[in-house]
Amino acid sequence: MTVAFAIEAADGAARRGRLTLAHGSVATPAFMPVGTAATVKALTVEQIRATGAEMVLCNTYHLMLRPGAERIAALGGLHRFMNWGGPILTDSGGFQVMSLAQLRAIDEDAVTFRSHIDGSSHRLTPERCIEIQRLLGVDIAMVLDECTSYPATIEVARESMARSMRWAGRCRRAFADRHGHGLFGIVQGGVHPELRRESAEALRAIGFDGYAIGGLAVGEGQDEMLRVIEATVPHLPAEQPRYLMGVGKPDDIVEAVRRGVDLFDCVLPTRSGRTGQAFTWDGPLNLKNARHADDPRPLDEHADSPASRDYSRAYLHHLVKANEILASVLLTWHNVGFYQALMRELRAAIAGHRLAAFAQAFLSRYRASSPAV
Amino acid sequence: MTVAFAIEAADGAARRGRLTLAHGSVATPAFMPVGTAATVKALTVEQIRATGAEMVLCNTYHLMLRPGAERIAALGGLHRFMNWGGPILTDSGGFQVMSLAQLRAIDEDAVTFRSHIDGSSHRLTPERCIEIQRLLGVDIAMVLDECTSYPATIEVARESMARSMRWAGRCRRAFADRHGHGLFGIVQGGVHPELRRESAEALRAIGFDGYAIGGLAVGEGQDEMLRVIEATVPHLPAEQPRYLMGVGKPDDIVEAVRRGVDLFDCVLPTRSGRTGQAFTWDGPLNLKNARHADDPRPLDEHADSPASRDYSRAYLHHLVKANEILASVLLTWHNVGFYQALMRELRAAIAGHRLAAFAQAFLSRYRASSPAV
Repeated sequence: MTVAFAIEAADGAARRGRLTLAHGSVATPAFMPVGTAATVKALTVEQIRATGAEMVLCNTYHLMLRPGAERIAALGGLHRFMNWGGPILTDSGGFQVMSLAQLRAIDEDAVTFRSHIDGSSHRLTPERCIEIQRLLGVDIAMVLDECTSYPATIEVARESMARSMRWAGRCRRAFADRHGHGLFGIVQGGVHPELRRESAEALRAIGFDGYAIGGLAVGEGQDEMLRVIEATVPHLPAEQPRYLMGVGKPDDIVEAVRRGVDLFDCVLPTRSGRTGQAFTWDGPLNLKNARHADDPRPLDEHADSPASRDYSRAYLHHLVKANEILASVLLTWHNVGFYQALMRELRAAIAGHRLAAFAQAFLSRYRASSPAV
Repeated sequence: MTVAFAIEAADGAARRGRLTLAHGSVATPAFMPVGTAATVKALTVEQIRATGAEMVLCNTYHLMLRPGAERIAALGGLHRFMNWGGPILTDSGGFQVMSLAQLRAIDEDAVTFRSHIDGSSHRLTPERCIEIQRLLGVDIAMVLDECTSYPATIEVARESMARSMRWAGRCRRAFADRHGHGLFGIVQGGVHPELRRESAEALRAIGFDGYAIGGLAVGEGQDEMLRVIEATVPHLPAEQPRYLMGVGKPDDIVEAVRRGVDLFDCVLPTRSGRTGQAFTWDGPLNLKNARHADDPRPLDEHADSPASRDYSRAYLHHLVKANEILASVLLTWHNVGFYQALMRELRAAIAGHRLAAFAQAFLSRYRASSPAV
């Protein structure tokens, strides 16, 4: 294995670990802010670092289309391109092809699609997917998979999962081990426990540096998502990192950590920051709401971040109403900072063997609020 | 006088000074970034400070309409509202009423207009203009004036200027001296030297903490603008600060400093930063241009600012093409930093009695480039 993962403490199924990669180490459970097009939208790298985030995710689909993997390689790789010195994980592009591209078609060899940017035609094989992620020079690459549609019959889910497993094998063969650079497999199988187990076992047989749970947060609801996690985790290697892709809301993350997940990514804190929504320990707030217009309180007076501490809700309301760029900057900065603070609290709770109490206290306070007022 | 201005060095008509105000002191010649709606668009206050900017300008017109002067006062004043601890100057709103508001009408008592935001009706007298700026708590307030249209016959320009002088007297009476808070008069008179002299003398007779030259950069061209400055400056008190409103391009500023101007503001560095334009010592660049797509050089490797030094032109080109918020952030940060670096160079050149040589070297290099490629 070229990726080192050390489990430093455990509390029930949850683990407090450290993932060591080519560009640094990451305390887990960790949340990766999403930097789709080589930028965590609205934030400078100094602001990302100030939140405590140690690793970011970028999207292979977006970067292969613009500015192009060969161009980024010629400019010294993705880390240098975006001026982010810490670890980077890229997804494989499979999910975005399904959700964003046009005229997509899957055959056994590859996925073919047209760019949502300029209509140009592209063909992504498992081998090309790995080549792109190598050109980018990322710390963790993901295998190309097919994100099974939801809902799907067990027959459709099985066929889709089986192809993803064949593609996982091709990705593994295309990926030569390099010190500190790792490749993660992705468990598919829809909401069917037996398919998830089968997929997990297929991936273990191939052997990866870590194992992702894919195809969730696509409309199945939190209860179903947690059931799938519970049905999958026991079939993954205990000593390797587990990554729940594209999840999620703060309460999703707390529940998934309790079930043994180590890594997360989601656009929620960044996307919400651009639409006037702020996450707080008392639930989400919608800063557009007129009730904030005269409120002198900051979003979180106890936070380290200037965005959370140094600006009144009244000012943030004003910036949102005036459609100012600084609204997106400050709310994104605050939200990413909130997610990182939550992960710090979760790590401390695991190390202190008090995760159940922390989770109960967090969830009851967080869920007591009305949604986004 | 409640505003202290010390001239520390002179070189020809140019002065190197220090303006001391309620919220700090400002080395002059100084450029104020424009923070229209209580935010220098796209920048945090930490980024503004990092450029070396010591003072910002906000727009009375925008703030009176949204979020309202009384609301800002209740929240502790404009400095606290926008989390900017340094000096703030507000314009009077007169210029924006003419350029932005709807259904405007001027009579001897006031200007009446409809808000461009919600169509609400407002009446701005000289006395209300001063009251608003007091509620905001700014370091320097400006008198309400009428920005004479361009071109204007001498009769129209005289009548407009004469009303502005009567309003200047009303503003002065409405403004009670407060320690460190100052009021500046505004010279009008179009492009007519005799009207400019008459206006300057009328303002001196009233007595202000500083004197602005208004009604320029409205289409008259640089040569005409410089002629008006030359015709105005000799009639202003030598020991008080001179402020050229709304100017300008880097070469405008160099030429105006040589003619004795101490203060500037302009939306150019911030607005250009949101449209892909970057200022450099070799002239402006348009980062949208495909020739930057593979360029590994930063905008200015010798600059202190991360925005200027730590990102390639290729990356900035990518961000601009992808319409990313970070493009606006980094280019605005760079541009405001460039303007501040130019002001530092100008101050050092005056102190070293080498302004003419500096100006010649700067202008020949800056103007040698093709415009914005």
